[in-house]
Amino acid sequence: MEGRATVSTPAALPYYVAFSQLLGLTLVAMTGAWLGLYRGGIAWESDLQFNVHPLCMAIGLIFLQGDALLVYRVFRNEAKRTTKVLHGMLHVSALTIALVGLVAVFDYHRKKGYADLYSLHSWCGILVFVLYFVQWLVGFSFFLFPGASFSLRSRYRASHIFFGATIFILSVGTALLGLKEALLFKLGAKYSLFEPEGVLANVLGLLLACFGGVVLYILTRPDWKRPSQAEEQALSMDFKTLTEGDSPGSQ
Amino acid sequence: MEGRATVSTPAALPYYVAFSQLLGLTLVAMTGAWLGLYRGGIAWESDLQFNVHPLCMAIGLIFLQGDALLVYRVFRNEAKRTTKVLHGMLHVSALTIALVGLVAVFDYHRKKGYADLYSLHSWCGILVFVLYFVQWLVGFSFFLFPGASFSLRSRYRASHIFFGATIFILSVGTALLGLKEALLFKLGAKYSLFEPEGVLANVLGLLLACFGGVVLYILTRPDWKRPSQAEEQALSMDFKTLTEGDSPGSQ
Repeated sequence: MEGRATVSTPAALPYYVAFSQLLGLTLVAMTGAWLGLYRGGIAWESDLQFNVHPLCMAIGLIFLQGDALLVYRVFRNEAKRTTKVLHGMLHVSALTIALVGLVAVFDYHRKKGYADLYSLHSWCGILVFVLYFVQWLVGFSFFLFPGASFSLRSRYRASHIFFGATIFILSVGTALLGLKEALLFKLGAKYSLFEPEGVLANVLGLLLACFGGVVLYILTRPDWKRPSQAEEQALSMDFKTLTEGDSPGSQ
Repeated sequence: MEGRATVSTPAALPYYVAFSQLLGLTLVAMTGAWLGLYRGGIAWESDLQFNVHPLCMAIGLIFLQGDALLVYRVFRNEAKRTTKVLHGMLHVSALTIALVGLVAVFDYHRKKGYADLYSLHSWCGILVFVLYFVQWLVGFSFFLFPGASFSLRSRYRASHIFFGATIFILSVGTALLGLKEALLFKLGAKYSLFEPEGVLANVLGLLLACFGGVVLYILTRPDWKRPSQAEEQALSMDFKTLTEGDSPGSQ
């Protein structure tokens, strides 16, 4: 373990993580089932191009983004740098898949001659995408690029975590708005007849909200934070001797 | 000050609180403007009864619930008990106003012969209402009713805060779904023509999301938590002498 002490994993944490993965995989599968059963499936070069959008967003901006937030809670004994790189790579994957989903819907609108960016879902979606990209760039500059000082990283860490959680919540909210929009455009007044598609999509909406809730619970529970490792404590102590402040700690 | 030391207020906190109030009041006013300008206003005994629902929810489940969460950050030098009572009373007001909003929509549906509880908005809304009521009851039993022990309160506090924030986020998400539903039912395909009602409602949606974000920022910023008062520290020390554990602290 390269001189690092092994920290114990809180007893309930693996169960919550397993539950979050079950919810996440189920919501991706259910998005696929919804598109396959009621929307004719998925293809790029046809009227089915629109359907690439919800599937990419469910995989990228919901499931992978959520998992990227959990990396520091799950990998408690790996080197901090390894965990950081995994965190950054999961976010890059999420952003790339989301970009494919974004291109799909704009391309579909262009081919059909539909207007862009008129709905609340699209406004929130663009906001999420821009914030997510900026957060990734700033996070990369501070935490992965070697230039930033230890004290700068410590001061930025709390903001990074808050904005990360906020962007994730906004992503879930935007997905719910998109789901509702897709349902109302197609079902209209039939929605109130408890059509199977409506009920399935409502359950999918609740799954989205539950996945968001469980990820946030794991992320915010104070005693589940990643404890600082011996290597970081040593760095922190070196830093302490150089300044007048306290050790900023680590999580 | 009854023997309690005055704690200083963080310099930026009042500005953030003022900004949250500006956002909250604007979103309530804009909900009223939307209903007045585009939906014929508000009345109980007419077709306008439905409009009581969004206004009550914006006031109760968004603005007042958000403000109830901020009470411990704003009133830093009042006695803990006074702050608790204010927190509980704001939540009771929010719940009562939300109940009026709930009755309005069910009564309107009954009179019109519309189906109830078929949409994702209604499923999320019922979930929010039940969770909010249960959270209030449990919170009252633990924190205001004199029976619960100090250690029981300390252990429950983190869950109370997490579920409080989660219910608030879910309330904002449910409001966004409801707004979208109301827009799509009335505007339909005209939504894509950038109708003034659609643009106003989109801006209202962004205001809702921003209010939620600012309240959560104030609530979760670690250095803005309410510091423990001398009276609580004394109680905590008494407790420490009776048990083997550390002082659980307070916030």
